[in-house]
Amino acid sequence: MKLLGYWRSSAAYRVRIALNLKGLDAELESVHLVKNGGEQHLPEYAALNPQELVPTLIEGDNEFVLSQSLAIIEYLDEQYGGAMMLPTAPKARAEVRAMALSIACEVHPLNNLKVLQYLTNTLELDEDAKNAWYHHWIHQGFSAFEKQLEKHAGSYCYGDEVTLADLCLIPQVYNANRFKVDLSTYPNIRRIWDNCHQLEAFVLAAPERQADAS
Amino acid sequence: MKLLGYWRSSAAYRVRIALNLKGLDAELESVHLVKNGGEQHLPEYAALNPQELVPTLIEGDNEFVLSQSLAIIEYLDEQYGGAMMLPTAPKARAEVRAMALSIACEVHPLNNLKVLQYLTNTLELDEDAKNAWYHHWIHQGFSAFEKQLEKHAGSYCYGDEVTLADLCLIPQVYNANRFKVDLSTYPNIRRIWDNCHQLEAFVLAAPERQADAS
Repeated sequence: MKLLGYWRSSAAYRVRIALNLKGLDAELESVHLVKNGGEQHLPEYAALNPQELVPTLIEGDNEFVLSQSLAIIEYLDEQYGGAMMLPTAPKARAEVRAMALSIACEVHPLNNLKVLQYLTNTLELDEDAKNAWYHHWIHQGFSAFEKQLEKHAGSYCYGDEVTLADLCLIPQVYNANRFKVDLSTYPNIRRIWDNCHQLEAFVLAAPERQADAS
Repeated sequence: MKLLGYWRSSAAYRVRIALNLKGLDAELESVHLVKNGGEQHLPEYAALNPQELVPTLIEGDNEFVLSQSLAIIEYLDEQYGGAMMLPTAPKARAEVRAMALSIACEVHPLNNLKVLQYLTNTLELDEDAKNAWYHHWIHQGFSAFEKQLEKHAGSYCYGDEVTLADLCLIPQVYNANRFKVDLSTYPNIRRIWDNCHQLEAFVLAAPERQADAS
């Protein structure tokens, strides 16, 4: 099994945590998202992943090629078992998915590399306006997430087991810290960040621990 | 079962199709996204859905309240059975989820109401720049999706059964048509649009068929 990713990609980071929690061995291969205009746009990579995004999971000799981090994580759960990223009861599974999607569909898509590049290159926003954009969507998303946590959180986002919701939250918090977003009004988010970082699976998946970090 | 939505919301439209395909009866209740600054921001609604987005699924007397269209659709599959929106084999399920997420995480979040409002109100973009933004993300997403379809499509996005991928594609095409995006270079997308509209479940879920359409 091979995971094509990039140290700073939040989506690849989610999958790295899942692989660690499930104890699955995957070869991590770097696709540099910035160098030479972005290696994700090279024809060889685009043939594997037409969205030209990371991560991509590959099994065998390109026998099975899968994109989209949440699809990859649910696949790992369904195909490999082990520690599960979703609870078993339908209502609980649904609530965890909703929390995960509230990051993956509402926050991350607005703040990822391709969007920030459009803001700079096409809309010609200055750094202040770009930062304001970034902070706006983080605060909107995290305010709503914090309310979900008040209802569902235990040690982690949903009760006392790590779930897909934590796998989405932690990389987004990492990213928010990088952009110096003030998270003081989100006590549950900060607490869950601390709790997750007691676990080796999260620590080892962190961007700065990856071989391609620079 | 009650679905709080809005006729023009792509996310609510996805769930309406699923309810129809599964033959589930749900009371549709309108949350007007524009009138009075948006009814989704009213305290009563925000208490149910802290993201202040539609749709929200409600069972019983607010006993179970669920947000996020993809979480809702997977919940309906897991809880109610009937026509299934995902295949049964893990690899096929994963590929369908990846296709659905490539719309739900890469296209729709960039073109929904809250983002278009930010472009107008905060970035003060004119209509041309806003349209260019809209078209850019549709073309980027649909180009990649068309390549996925070359690999996976039959009568529908993934083989000859309707799946979650179709439920995400059709509302996005509806939206693209509304913004006059030229779809002539996406023959598979147009073909699947036509095929889906042979099915009553899609026809009856269309925005202009809803009671709150104006």
